[in-house]
Amino acid sequence: MRYQRIPDETVRRLPIYLRGALHLSGRGIESTSSQELADVIGVEPWQIRKDFSYFGGFGTRGVGYNLSHLIKHVSRILRLDAAQRAVLVGVGNLGSALLAFPGFGMYGFEITAAFDIDKRKIGRRKSGVLIEDVARLRRLTTRGIRLGIVAVPEAASQDVVDTLAQVGVKGILNFSPRYVTVPRGVKVITIDIAMDLARLPYYIPAGRAVRQCV
Amino acid sequence: MRYQRIPDETVRRLPIYLRGALHLSGRGIESTSSQELADVIGVEPWQIRKDFSYFGGFGTRGVGYNLSHLIKHVSRILRLDAAQRAVLVGVGNLGSALLAFPGFGMYGFEITAAFDIDKRKIGRRKSGVLIEDVARLRRLTTRGIRLGIVAVPEAASQDVVDTLAQVGVKGILNFSPRYVTVPRGVKVITIDIAMDLARLPYYIPAGRAVRQCV
Repeated sequence: MRYQRIPDETVRRLPIYLRGALHLSGRGIESTSSQELADVIGVEPWQIRKDFSYFGGFGTRGVGYNLSHLIKHVSRILRLDAAQRAVLVGVGNLGSALLAFPGFGMYGFEITAAFDIDKRKIGRRKSGVLIEDVARLRRLTTRGIRLGIVAVPEAASQDVVDTLAQVGVKGILNFSPRYVTVPRGVKVITIDIAMDLARLPYYIPAGRAVRQCV
Repeated sequence: MRYQRIPDETVRRLPIYLRGALHLSGRGIESTSSQELADVIGVEPWQIRKDFSYFGGFGTRGVGYNLSHLIKHVSRILRLDAAQRAVLVGVGNLGSALLAFPGFGMYGFEITAAFDIDKRKIGRRKSGVLIEDVARLRRLTTRGIRLGIVAVPEAASQDVVDTLAQVGVKGILNFSPRYVTVPRGVKVITIDIAMDLARLPYYIPAGRAVRQCV
Protein backbone atom coordinates (compact mmCIF):
# COMPACT_ATOMS: atom_id res chain seq x y z
CA MET A 1 0.00 0.00 0.00
CA ARG A 2 1.28 3.47 -0.91
CA TYR A 3 -0.31 6.61 0.49
CA GLN A 4 -0.07 9.46 -1.99
CA ARG A 5 0.66 13.17 -1.78
CA ILE A 6 1.50 13.54 1.88
CA PRO A 7 3.26 16.86 2.50
CA ASP A 8 6.91 16.52 3.58
CA GLU A 9 6.13 18.39 6.79
CA THR A 10 3.52 15.77 7.69
CA VAL A 11 5.98 12.98 6.92
CA ARG A 12 8.48 14.71 9.19
CA ARG A 13 5.99 14.61 12.06
CA LEU A 14 4.93 10.98 11.57
CA PRO A 15 7.91 9.56 13.54
CA ILE A 16 7.06 12.05 16.31
CA TYR A 17 3.52 10.68 16.43
CA LEU A 18 4.82 7.13 16.31
CA ARG A 19 7.19 7.78 19.18
CA GLY A 20 4.49 9.43 21.27
CA ALA A 21 2.08 6.56 20.54
CA LEU A 22 4.73 3.98 21.51
CA HIS A 23 5.37 5.96 24.70
CA LEU A 24 1.68 6.01 25.69
CA SER A 25 1.19 2.39 24.64
CA GLY A 26 4.19 1.44 26.80
CA ARG A 27 2.35 2.91 29.77
CA GLY A 28 -0.53 0.52 29.16
CA ILE A 29 -2.84 3.07 27.52
CA GLU A 30 -5.05 1.68 24.74
CA SER A 31 -6.56 4.77 23.14
CA THR A 32 -5.69 8.45 23.18
CA SER A 33 -7.02 11.85 22.13
CA SER A 34 -5.24 14.41 19.95
CA GLN A 35 -4.98 16.56 23.11
CA GLU A 36 -3.31 13.82 25.17
CA LEU A 37 -0.93 12.98 22.33
CA ALA A 38 -0.23 16.71 21.90
CA ASP A 39 0.70 17.03 25.59
CA VAL A 40 3.27 14.26 25.25
CA ILE A 41 4.91 15.26 21.98
CA GLY A 42 4.49 19.03 21.94
CA VAL A 43 2.66 19.31 18.61
CA GLU A 44 -0.65 21.24 18.47
CA PRO A 45 -3.82 19.04 18.61
CA TRP A 46 -5.25 20.61 15.41
CA GLN A 47 -2.00 19.80 13.62
CA ILE A 48 -2.25 16.16 14.70
CA ARG A 49 -5.85 15.93 13.48
CA LYS A 50 -4.97 17.58 10.18
CA ASP A 51 -1.97 15.31 9.60
CA PHE A 52 -3.97 12.18 10.40
CA SER A 53 -6.69 13.30 7.98
CA TYR A 54 -4.29 12.60 5.09
CA PHE A 55 -4.67 8.91 5.86
CA GLY A 56 -8.40 9.01 6.45
CA GLY A 57 -7.77 9.63 10.16
CA PHE A 58 -7.11 6.95 12.72
CA GLY A 59 -9.72 7.87 15.25
CA THR A 60 -13.40 8.04 16.08
CA ARG A 61 -14.85 11.34 17.27
CA GLY A 62 -15.47 11.19 21.01
CA VAL A 63 -13.59 7.91 21.36
CA GLY A 64 -10.10 8.90 20.22
CA TYR A 65 -7.33 7.05 18.51
CA ASN A 66 -6.73 3.38 19.08
CA LEU A 67 -3.00 3.23 19.80
CA SER A 68 -2.15 -0.19 18.39
CA HIS A 69 -4.02 0.71 15.19
CA LEU A 70 -2.20 4.06 15.05
CA ILE A 71 1.23 2.47 15.61
CA LYS A 72 0.61 -0.19 12.99
CA HIS A 73 -0.54 2.28 10.32
CA VAL A 74 2.06 4.97 10.91
CA SER A 75 4.79 2.29 10.86
CA ARG A 76 3.44 0.97 7.58
CA ILE A 77 3.18 4.43 6.01
CA LEU A 78 6.78 5.12 7.01
CA ARG A 79 7.82 1.63 5.76
CA LEU A 80 9.17 0.86 9.21
CA ASP A 81 7.30 -2.43 9.34
CA ALA A 82 10.39 -4.23 7.97
CA ALA A 83 13.84 -4.04 9.56
CA GLN A 84 16.13 -1.47 7.95
CA ARG A 85 19.90 -1.78 7.71
CA ALA A 86 22.07 1.32 7.64
CA VAL A 87 25.72 2.03 6.88
CA LEU A 88 27.66 4.65 8.83
CA VAL A 89 30.50 6.56 7.20
CA GLY A 90 32.76 8.42 9.60
CA VAL A 91 33.48 6.95 13.04
CA GLY A 92 34.67 10.08 14.84
CA ASN A 93 33.03 11.42 18.00
CA LEU A 94 29.64 11.87 16.36
CA GLY A 95 29.82 8.55 14.48
CA SER A 96 30.78 6.72 17.68
CA ALA A 97 27.85 8.32 19.47
CA LEU A 98 25.55 7.19 16.66
CA LEU A 99 26.87 3.60 16.82
CA ALA A 100 26.17 3.52 20.56
CA PHE A 101 22.81 5.30 20.25
CA PRO A 102 20.08 3.16 21.82
CA GLY A 103 17.20 4.92 20.03
CA PHE A 104 17.46 3.35 16.57
CA GLY A 105 16.09 0.00 17.67
CA MET A 106 12.68 1.52 18.45
CA TYR A 107 12.12 2.04 14.74
CA GLY A 108 13.69 -1.21 13.56
CA PHE A 109 16.98 0.33 12.43
CA GLU A 110 20.35 -1.31 12.75
CA ILE A 111 23.74 0.05 11.73
CA THR A 112 25.30 -3.05 10.19
CA ALA A 113 28.39 -1.52 8.57
CA ALA A 114 30.78 1.31 9.43
CA PHE A 115 33.59 2.90 7.43
CA ASP A 116 36.37 5.31 8.27
CA ILE A 117 39.52 6.68 6.62
CA ASP A 118 41.69 6.45 9.77
CA LYS A 119 44.02 3.43 9.62
CA ARG A 120 44.11 3.25 13.43
CA LYS A 121 40.37 2.64 13.54
CA ILE A 122 40.06 0.26 10.59
CA GLY A 123 39.76 -3.37 11.69
CA ARG A 124 38.55 -2.48 15.18
CA ARG A 125 35.04 -2.89 16.46
CA LYS A 126 32.93 -0.15 17.98
CA SER A 127 29.62 -0.98 19.66
CA GLY A 128 29.97 -4.38 18.03
CA VAL A 129 30.33 -3.08 14.47
CA LEU A 130 33.55 -3.68 12.49
CA ILE A 131 35.12 -0.49 11.15
CA GLU A 132 36.12 -0.97 7.51
CA ASP A 133 38.34 1.04 5.19
CA VAL A 134 36.32 3.77 3.44
CA ALA A 135 38.25 2.95 0.27
CA ARG A 136 36.21 -0.26 0.19
CA LEU A 137 32.85 1.48 0.49
CA ARG A 138 32.26 0.72 -3.20
CA ARG A 139 32.00 -2.98 -2.40
CA LEU A 140 28.89 -2.39 -0.32
CA THR A 141 26.59 -3.11 -3.28
CA THR A 142 25.84 -6.72 -2.34
CA ARG A 143 24.83 -6.18 1.28
CA GLY A 144 21.30 -4.91 0.77
CA ILE A 145 21.84 -1.72 2.71
CA ARG A 146 19.68 1.15 1.54
CA LEU A 147 20.19 3.75 4.27
CA GLY A 148 23.35 5.71 4.90
CA ILE A 149 24.48 7.96 7.73
CA VAL A 150 27.22 10.45 6.87
CA ALA A 151 29.27 11.78 9.79
CA VAL A 152 32.45 12.85 8.02
CA PRO A 153 34.09 16.29 7.95
CA GLU A 154 32.42 18.87 5.73
CA ALA A 155 35.05 18.68 2.99
CA ALA A 156 34.53 14.94 2.48
CA SER A 157 30.73 14.78 2.65
CA GLN A 158 29.89 15.27 -1.05
CA ASP A 159 32.31 12.51 -2.12
CA VAL A 160 30.90 10.11 0.43
CA VAL A 161 27.33 10.92 -0.57
CA ASP A 162 28.22 10.35 -4.25
CA THR A 163 29.73 6.96 -3.45
CA LEU A 164 26.76 5.92 -1.31
CA ALA A 165 24.40 6.82 -4.15
CA GLN A 166 26.53 4.76 -6.56
CA VAL A 167 26.37 1.65 -4.37
CA GLY A 168 22.60 1.75 -4.17
CA VAL A 169 21.92 3.66 -0.95
CA LYS A 170 18.58 5.40 -1.40
CA GLY A 171 18.21 7.41 1.80
CA ILE A 172 20.96 9.45 3.43
CA LEU A 173 21.10 11.19 6.78
CA ASN A 174 23.78 13.86 6.45
CA PHE A 175 25.30 15.36 9.60
CA SER A 176 27.83 17.50 7.79
CA PRO A 177 26.94 21.20 8.04
CA ARG A 178 26.72 21.80 4.31
CA TYR A 179 24.29 21.17 1.50
CA VAL A 180 25.05 18.09 -0.59
CA THR A 181 23.52 17.15 -3.92
CA VAL A 182 22.20 13.71 -4.79
CA PRO A 183 20.99 12.06 -7.99
CA ARG A 184 17.26 11.64 -8.64
CA GLY A 185 15.78 8.80 -6.64
CA VAL A 186 17.99 9.39 -3.62
CA LYS A 187 16.61 11.28 -0.64
CA VAL A 188 18.97 13.17 1.65
CA ILE A 189 18.04 14.72 4.98
CA THR A 190 20.63 17.11 6.39
CA ILE A 191 20.73 17.39 10.17
CA ASP A 192 22.10 20.67 11.40
CA ILE A 193 22.24 20.58 15.19
CA ALA A 194 22.90 24.31 15.29
CA MET A 195 19.55 24.94 13.62
CA ASP A 196 17.74 23.25 16.46
CA LEU A 197 19.65 25.37 18.96
CA ALA A 198 18.93 28.44 16.84
CA ARG A 199 15.21 28.38 17.52
CA LEU A 200 15.56 28.24 21.31
CA PRO A 201 16.29 31.94 21.97
CA TYR A 202 12.97 32.79 20.30
CA TYR A 203 11.22 31.25 23.30
CA ILE A 204 13.33 33.02 25.90
CA PRO A 205 12.02 36.34 27.15
CA ALA A 206 14.68 39.06 27.11
CA GLY A 207 16.10 39.48 30.58
CA ARG A 208 18.93 40.88 32.60
CA ALA A 209 21.01 37.75 32.21
CA VAL A 210 21.56 38.39 28.50
CA ARG A 211 23.64 41.46 29.11
CA GLN A 212 25.33 40.14 32.23
CA CYS A 213 29.05 39.40 31.86
CA VAL A 214 31.03 36.50 33.38
CA MET B 1 10.36 44.12 18.99
CA ARG B 2 8.32 40.97 19.63
CA TYR B 3 6.37 39.24 16.86
CA GLN B 4 3.29 37.54 18.20
CA ARG B 5 1.50 34.26 17.58
CA ILE B 6 3.90 32.59 15.20
CA PRO B 7 3.15 28.85 14.98
CA ASP B 8 5.90 26.63 16.43
CA GLU B 9 6.26 24.91 13.07
CA THR B 10 7.06 28.25 11.44
CA VAL B 11 9.59 29.05 14.17
CA ARG B 12 11.17 25.66 13.52
CA ARG B 13 11.67 26.56 9.87
CA LEU B 14 13.05 30.07 10.46
CA PRO B 15 16.63 28.85 11.09
CA ILE B 16 16.35 26.81 7.87
CA TYR B 17 15.42 29.98 5.98
CA LEU B 18 18.21 31.89 7.70
CA ARG B 19 20.74 29.26 6.80
CA GLY B 20 19.59 29.15 3.16
CA ALA B 21 19.65 32.96 2.97
CA LEU B 22 23.19 33.06 4.43
CA HIS B 23 24.24 30.40 1.92
CA LEU B 24 22.88 32.37 -1.07
CA SER B 25 24.20 35.65 0.29
CA GLY B 26 27.63 34.04 0.68
CA ARG B 27 27.56 33.32 -3.04
CA GLY B 28 27.17 37.02 -3.75
CA ILE B 29 23.43 36.91 -4.50
CA GLU B 30 21.46 39.98 -3.36
CA SER B 31 17.85 38.96 -3.77
CA THR B 32 16.07 35.63 -4.19
CA SER B 33 12.69 34.10 -4.98
CA SER B 34 10.74 31.63 -2.87
CA GLN B 35 11.45 29.09 -5.64
CA GLU B 36 15.22 29.65 -5.55
CA LEU B 37 15.26 29.51 -1.76
CA ALA B 38 13.10 26.38 -1.90
CA ASP B 39 15.59 24.67 -4.23
CA VAL B 40 18.40 25.30 -1.75
CA ILE B 41 16.68 24.32 1.48
CA GLY B 42 14.12 21.74 0.35
CA VAL B 43 11.01 23.46 1.73
CA GLU B 44 8.05 24.04 -0.62
CA PRO B 45 7.83 27.60 -2.09
CA TRP B 46 4.21 28.05 -0.89
CA GLN B 47 5.31 27.12 2.62
CA ILE B 48 8.04 29.77 2.54
CA ARG B 49 5.60 32.44 1.33
CA LYS B 50 3.07 31.44 3.98
CA ASP B 51 5.65 31.48 6.79
CA PHE B 52 6.99 34.87 5.72
CA SER B 53 3.47 36.26 5.68
CA TYR B 54 3.41 36.05 9.50
CA PHE B 55 5.91 38.90 9.55
CA GLY B 56 4.28 40.95 6.84
CA GLY B 57 6.45 39.18 4.25
CA PHE B 58 9.97 40.15 3.33
CA GLY B 59 9.58 40.47 -0.41
CA THR B 60 8.07 42.37 -3.29
CA ARG B 61 6.04 40.45 -5.87
CA GLY B 62 8.05 40.02 -9.08
CA VAL B 63 11.23 41.28 -7.40
CA GLY B 64 11.74 38.69 -4.68
CA TYR B 65 13.28 38.81 -1.25
CA ASN B 66 16.17 41.09 -0.45
CA LEU B 67 18.63 38.76 1.27
CA SER B 68 20.31 41.16 3.69
CA HIS B 69 16.87 42.41 4.79
CA LEU B 70 15.68 38.81 5.19
CA ILE B 71 18.76 37.76 7.20
CA LYS B 72 18.48 40.78 9.48
CA HIS B 73 14.80 40.29 10.23
CA VAL B 74 14.84 36.53 10.70
CA SER B 75 17.85 36.89 13.02
CA ARG B 76 16.01 39.50 15.04
CA ILE B 77 12.83 37.43 15.25
CA LEU B 78 14.86 34.46 16.49
CA ARG B 79 16.78 36.75 18.89
CA LEU B 80 20.02 35.70 17.26
CA ASP B 81 21.17 39.29 16.83
CA ALA B 82 23.02 39.08 20.17
CA ALA B 83 25.66 36.46 20.97
CA GLN B 84 24.31 33.50 22.95
CA ARG B 85 26.29 31.48 25.47
CA ALA B 86 25.46 27.84 26.07
CA VAL B 87 26.46 25.24 28.66
CA LEU B 88 27.03 21.62 27.70
CA VAL B 89 26.35 18.84 30.19
CA GLY B 90 27.82 15.46 29.27
CA VAL B 91 31.15 15.30 27.43
CA GLY B 92 30.93 11.78 26.03
CA ASN B 93 31.16 11.00 22.32
CA LEU B 94 28.16 13.14 21.43
CA GLY B 95 29.13 16.00 23.76
CA SER B 96 32.66 16.01 22.34
CA ALA B 97 31.25 16.15 18.83
CA LEU B 98 29.07 19.10 19.87
CA LEU B 99 32.05 20.95 21.40
CA ALA B 100 33.97 20.53 18.16
CA PHE B 101 30.97 21.34 15.96
CA PRO B 102 31.81 24.24 13.64
CA GLY B 103 28.20 25.11 12.82
CA PHE B 104 27.21 26.97 16.01
CA GLY B 105 29.21 30.07 15.14
CA MET B 106 26.99 30.82 12.15
CA TYR B 107 24.15 31.65 14.53
CA GLY B 108 26.25 33.43 17.15
CA PHE B 109 26.32 30.53 19.60
CA GLU B 110 29.24 29.64 21.78
CA ILE B 111 29.57 26.78 24.27
CA THR B 112 31.34 28.54 27.12
CA ALA B 113 31.01 25.89 29.85
CA ALA B 114 31.04 22.09 29.94
CA PHE B 115 30.31 19.65 32.76
CA ASP B 116 30.78 15.92 33.21
CA ILE B 117 30.57 13.37 36.01
CA ASP B 118 33.74 11.46 34.98
CA LYS B 119 36.70 12.35 37.24
CA ARG B 120 39.13 11.51 34.41
CA LYS B 121 37.61 14.22 32.24
CA ILE B 122 37.15 16.93 34.88
CA GLY B 123 39.88 19.58 34.74
CA ARG B 124 40.80 18.80 31.14
CA ARG B 125 40.01 20.94 28.14
CA LYS B 126 38.15 19.80 25.06
CA SER B 127 37.98 22.05 21.99
CA GLY B 128 39.27 24.79 24.29
CA VAL B 129 36.51 24.46 26.89
CA LEU B 130 37.35 23.41 30.46
CA ILE B 131 35.40 20.38 31.66
CA GLU B 132 34.03 21.01 35.16
CA ASP B 133 32.55 18.70 37.78
CA VAL B 134 28.79 18.30 37.23
CA ALA B 135 28.38 18.51 41.02
CA ARG B 136 29.24 22.20 40.62
CA LEU B 137 26.62 22.86 37.95
CA ARG B 138 24.57 24.69 40.59
CA ARG B 139 27.17 27.45 40.72
CA LEU B 140 26.46 28.39 37.12
CA THR B 141 23.94 31.07 38.14
CA THR B 142 26.29 34.01 37.85
CA ARG B 143 27.63 33.34 34.38
CA GLY B 144 24.74 34.67 32.33
CA ILE B 145 24.23 31.44 30.42
CA ARG B 146 20.67 30.89 29.32
CA LEU B 147 20.99 27.97 26.91
CA GLY B 148 21.79 24.40 27.86
CA ILE B 149 22.69 21.33 25.83
CA VAL B 150 22.08 17.98 27.52
CA ALA B 151 24.07 15.01 26.20
CA VAL B 152 24.00 12.69 29.22
CA PRO B 153 22.69 9.10 29.41
CA GLU B 154 18.93 8.72 29.49
CA ALA B 155 18.74 7.93 33.20
CA ALA B 156 20.45 11.20 34.18
CA SER B 157 18.69 13.58 31.82
CA GLN B 158 15.74 14.63 34.00
CA ASP B 159 18.02 15.49 36.95
CA VAL B 160 20.30 17.55 34.72
CA VAL B 161 17.36 19.36 33.15
CA ASP B 162 15.96 20.14 36.63
CA THR B 163 19.30 21.59 37.75
CA LEU B 164 19.67 23.66 34.59
CA ALA B 165 16.20 25.12 35.11
CA GLN B 166 17.10 25.95 38.73
CA VAL B 167 20.25 27.86 37.74
CA GLY B 168 18.37 30.04 35.27
CA VAL B 169 18.79 28.24 31.96
CA LYS B 170 15.73 29.08 29.85
CA GLY B 171 16.23 27.01 26.72
CA ILE B 172 17.39 23.40 26.64
CA LEU B 173 18.40 21.19 23.75
CA ASN B 174 17.97 17.61 24.96
CA PHE B 175 19.72 14.80 23.11
CA SER B 176 18.64 12.07 25.48
CA PRO B 177 16.06 9.77 23.87
CA ARG B 178 13.34 10.36 26.44
CA TYR B 179 10.78 12.97 27.29
CA VAL B 180 11.78 15.36 30.07
CA THR B 181 9.57 17.80 31.91
CA VAL B 182 10.47 21.42 32.61
CA PRO B 183 8.95 24.16 34.72
CA ARG B 184 6.89 26.91 33.07
CA GLY B 185 9.05 29.50 31.37
CA VAL B 186 11.64 26.95 30.26
CA LYS B 187 11.59 25.65 26.69
CA VAL B 188 13.02 22.24 25.90
CA ILE B 189 13.59 20.83 22.44
CA THR B 190 14.32 17.12 22.33
CA ILE B 191 16.46 15.94 19.44
CA ASP B 192 15.91 12.31 18.54
CA ILE B 193 18.30 11.42 15.75
CA ALA B 194 16.45 8.16 15.17
CA MET B 195 13.32 10.13 14.29
CA ASP B 196 15.11 11.82 11.42
CA LEU B 197 16.31 8.46 10.18
CA ALA B 198 12.79 7.09 10.62
CA ARG B 199 11.31 9.24 7.90
CA LEU B 200 13.85 8.22 5.25
CA PRO B 201 12.36 4.82 4.29
CA TYR B 202 9.13 6.62 3.38
CA TYR B 203 10.95 8.12 0.41
CA ILE B 204 12.53 4.88 -0.72
CA PRO B 205 10.58 2.87 -3.25
CA ALA B 206 10.31 -0.78 -2.27
CA GLY B 207 12.85 -2.80 -4.22
CA ARG B 208 14.64 -6.07 -4.45
CA ALA B 209 17.42 -4.92 -2.12
CA VAL B 210 15.07 -4.89 0.88
CA ARG B 211 14.65 -8.63 0.89
CA GLN B 212 18.21 -9.37 -0.16
CA CYS B 213 20.32 -11.06 2.48
CA VAL B 214 23.97 -10.40 3.34
